[in-house]
Amino acid sequence: MSKSPEQEHPRKAIGWAARDSSGVLSPFKFSRRETGDEDVAFKVLYCGICHSDLHSVKNDWGNAIYPMVPGHEIVGVVTEVGRNVDKFKVGDKVGVGCMVGACHSCDSCKNDLENYCPKMILTYNSIYYDGTMTYGGYSDMMVANQRYVIRFPDNLPLDAGAPLLCAGITVYSPMKYFGLCEPGMHLGVLGLGGLGHVAVKFAKAFGIKVTVISSSPNKEKEAIERLGADAFLVSRNQEQMQAAAGTMDGIIDTVSAVHSLMPYLSLLKSHGKLVMVGLPEKPVEIAVFPLVMGRKILAGSCIGGMKETQEMIDFAGKHNITADIEVIPIDYVNTAMERLAKADVKYRFVIDVAKSLTSA
Amino acid sequence: MSKSPEQEHPRKAIGWAARDSSGVLSPFKFSRRETGDEDVAFKVLYCGICHSDLHSVKNDWGNAIYPMVPGHEIVGVVTEVGRNVDKFKVGDKVGVGCMVGACHSCDSCKNDLENYCPKMILTYNSIYYDGTMTYGGYSDMMVANQRYVIRFPDNLPLDAGAPLLCAGITVYSPMKYFGLCEPGMHLGVLGLGGLGHVAVKFAKAFGIKVTVISSSPNKEKEAIERLGADAFLVSRNQEQMQAAAGTMDGIIDTVSAVHSLMPYLSLLKSHGKLVMVGLPEKPVEIAVFPLVMGRKILAGSCIGGMKETQEMIDFAGKHNITADIEVIPIDYVNTAMERLAKADVKYRFVIDVAKSLTSA
Repeated sequence: MSKSPEQEHPRKAIGWAARDSSGVLSPFKFSRRETGDEDVAFKVLYCGICHSDLHSVKNDWGNAIYPMVPGHEIVGVVTEVGRNVDKFKVGDKVGVGCMVGACHSCDSCKNDLENYCPKMILTYNSIYYDGTMTYGGYSDMMVANQRYVIRFPDNLPLDAGAPLLCAGITVYSPMKYFGLCEPGMHLGVLGLGGLGHVAVKFAKAFGIKVTVISSSPNKEKEAIERLGADAFLVSRNQEQMQAAAGTMDGIIDTVSAVHSLMPYLSLLKSHGKLVMVGLPEKPVEIAVFPLVMGRKILAGSCIGGMKETQEMIDFAGKHNITADIEVIPIDYVNTAMERLAKADVKYRFVIDVAKSLTSA
Repeated sequence: MSKSPEQEHPRKAIGWAARDSSGVLSPFKFSRRETGDEDVAFKVLYCGICHSDLHSVKNDWGNAIYPMVPGHEIVGVVTEVGRNVDKFKVGDKVGVGCMVGACHSCDSCKNDLENYCPKMILTYNSIYYDGTMTYGGYSDMMVANQRYVIRFPDNLPLDAGAPLLCAGITVYSPMKYFGLCEPGMHLGVLGLGGLGHVAVKFAKAFGIKVTVISSSPNKEKEAIERLGADAFLVSRNQEQMQAAAGTMDGIIDTVSAVHSLMPYLSLLKSHGKLVMVGLPEKPVEIAVFPLVMGRKILAGSCIGGMKETQEMIDFAGKHNITADIEVIPIDYVNTAMERLAKADVKYRFVIDVAKSLTSA
């Protein structure tokens, strides 16, 4: 498209965007499309800051297109619906997660797994069907196809619920798909950050035993007393790790730093499953012997489909699961990114968009 | 035990044994236990030569105990049964595969997965319950607990059927467990050797599409015309590999040499499964991105439980599945091992024990 971001669509929008790989965000004027027949338009109230926002704005994955408005843990209130939309009405509390489009004809789409569609369109930094860039939730409003809009449970606070749209579904989906939520099971959660702390909460809501595995001994008290984990392992403590060998049915590995998988494979029972949801940038090394001898599985999982995302948030509503958050104004976002890079947050920043984003 | 192999049990037995890590086999006198209440004794007719026999006699895995009588693809005719045995009678055709004992109380054993029992006792080179060494099928007779004895289908030739007791169950079990045998599926079989050629036959009996992936272009004709594979990929042919990307539901990886997994992960559809049944001695490197982005699985699988081994051989009987073999006399075994090390066999050596093993 030859038109500028501010002119390509009829609806004026404001947000904060990164302009280059410095990743520094600043106010940005752009535009949103009219509410199409299948669309839901909503005023953004809150948007979580996901670790992948940080990777994206800094072009860590080499696919950044600037200016980039990040944000894919977006909640708000419906302001307009298209004429074919009957699931939502003005005033409804809704959310949008990591994606806003897909092909809708491949096997993945047909099976409600739009997240694995090769043509999946991300909520930001992607090209939409009409050829324009997608812009995320660090902005005053959103327009999205109804298939990608989630109904938010009435009882969940919008700010603390927002991160579930990415962090929640990212850990919920593999627990379900890999059968790690059955009564009597023992799940390990590797890494206690934005994803990990939510994984502990879902695991407890499923009624299973959960052990947090972390490199930081000082997270033990919090993991057990506040988050409700049943046990805590310091990953560098050989004795603890040895004692826990062969005890877990599965592990959700939320660590995105490059790390050896071998110590964690050892924690698994036979037929156990190590599921990676983080994205280490370099290949990992794995010995084949324990995989073969114990029929163990190393797998990955990436967010979840829209149907399952709705199921996840409904489950969260039923069990009062939210993320632990620190609410910030949007002009704090660059500081928040710096703190996030140092893992200095418990456990998710959420931008109070409605209160703090104003047209300068 | 302080008694010699020849004296520790009441029953005289002869076989061929390796005496050291040269791996050279030579005639060996030892003994077998009396037929216990739960035991089945049988005259060995044929014994397949598995690639792991070669690794074992040469102590490649560092756990060899000499003298070692290898052989775990053993078939023969029952000569005596213990008083609690009613599944078998004298004259029945039976087989023994890779194991002869387990704890029978752990979760794996309770679920008919003795093969994953931490106390599983291998058919040779293991310590039996009574503290004596186990000796395999390169010998004139066997005594085994009935739980570990397989009833051989009447219609299967004993010689060509013998390798199914290891090679057959090794590929059958993961096809079943990982759901790679469902109508409409497309399975890749990596490596066309003892395991691979049997995998093709099982896959075709399941009625699924099977593609052989091999580094040897000259195996194509045989794979397709004689074994019935639907397609053939030369693993080093980038163009072919590219064209087949994202087309397979699963791959049974039978290669035990160290190899990169990345090209094969690319062949998988989303949610596809790469199952290793070989045992590369060094760790393999794997990129996490394709696992996560396609919810792909890297897994291992190790033979199968006794119940499933019986199911496998019954299925083979029904579909007339046997291994392609070269029958040899026992005094050819050292030459056969050398040829096996060079992959110079189509596809399995089977020792005609009854005809060629005589007390020297």
